[in-house]
Amino acid sequence: MDVQLPDNSPAVSVTQPDEAAAVLAVVRATGLFDAQEVAVVDELLTYCFEQGPERSGYNFLSCRAGDRLLGFACYGPTPMTQGAFDLYWIVAAPASGRRGVGSALLERVLTEARAHGGRLLRVETSSRAEYEAARKFYLGHSFALEATIRDFYSPGDDLLFYVLRMS
Amino acid sequence: MDVQLPDNSPAVSVTQPDEAAAVLAVVRATGLFDAQEVAVVDELLTYCFEQGPERSGYNFLSCRAGDRLLGFACYGPTPMTQGAFDLYWIVAAPASGRRGVGSALLERVLTEARAHGGRLLRVETSSRAEYEAARKFYLGHSFALEATIRDFYSPGDDLLFYVLRMS
Repeated sequence: MDVQLPDNSPAVSVTQPDEAAAVLAVVRATGLFDAQEVAVVDELLTYCFEQGPERSGYNFLSCRAGDRLLGFACYGPTPMTQGAFDLYWIVAAPASGRRGVGSALLERVLTEARAHGGRLLRVETSSRAEYEAARKFYLGHSFALEATIRDFYSPGDDLLFYVLRMS
Repeated sequence: MDVQLPDNSPAVSVTQPDEAAAVLAVVRATGLFDAQEVAVVDELLTYCFEQGPERSGYNFLSCRAGDRLLGFACYGPTPMTQGAFDLYWIVAAPASGRRGVGSALLERVLTEARAHGGRLLRVETSSRAEYEAARKFYLGHSFALEATIRDFYSPGDDLLFYVLRMS
């Protein structure tokens, strides 16, 4: 007799083309992406589905419970490096039980990166107040704040590099 | 009576499509670009000529003396920032009188960036020995080493961020 997982247990899988609209809905629901940034996610999804993850350099992962998309991540090997990976976005839908969703996505990103020779995972974020939860998430998941470029995004808004070194 | 500049005085101008082969020859002559990196310069030149500098986000400048290309630079506004610019490459042909060529190119990049609201110019480089001349060039031209990600490119090869803040 097969054991059936309950339909609402979160599971991570490679994002499929028919999930693109749901990914963009999650992006918009966060309130953290302006129109230009939403357009970039949209473009990269299209590019990834057209070229494939390998050729495009962008890999999307979905975290779902049944038919509901709880969040997604986008990562890829950093061009011109041996074993550096960039985590471009890791996003949980508001009221999705964010922490579990982010952890599940990150775990899968690390598994995939390690399987492709990953040594470190880098994420760039902003020093603005609305990214405080993101920064806490990174620090709580073995990333360290390794570098800062002051006033990079705009005056008063620094660029922060968090790095997770895989051992 | 017009004063004619001698034909071999270096002058900086926007790179034209018929200069692409000369740009790639300069890239190869440095010995600092592997085949993958040469291909990236080639792709970006094509992309810039097809889309235009504004839409592509990549601007190429040539430094010429008469019919000889002495070097080139590639820069552009950093997406998702207000006033940050990236200097993607600044390259002088070997035996071109490198320092003067680099200085002339950088001066023009800064003029253009300032005219488009630039506040800072960022360049990424490597800690490897063969980039020592590049690092000295940056430090000698008002850049500061502001951030480092250890072992980023490969074990022992750090990513260095130099930033020039325009005042």
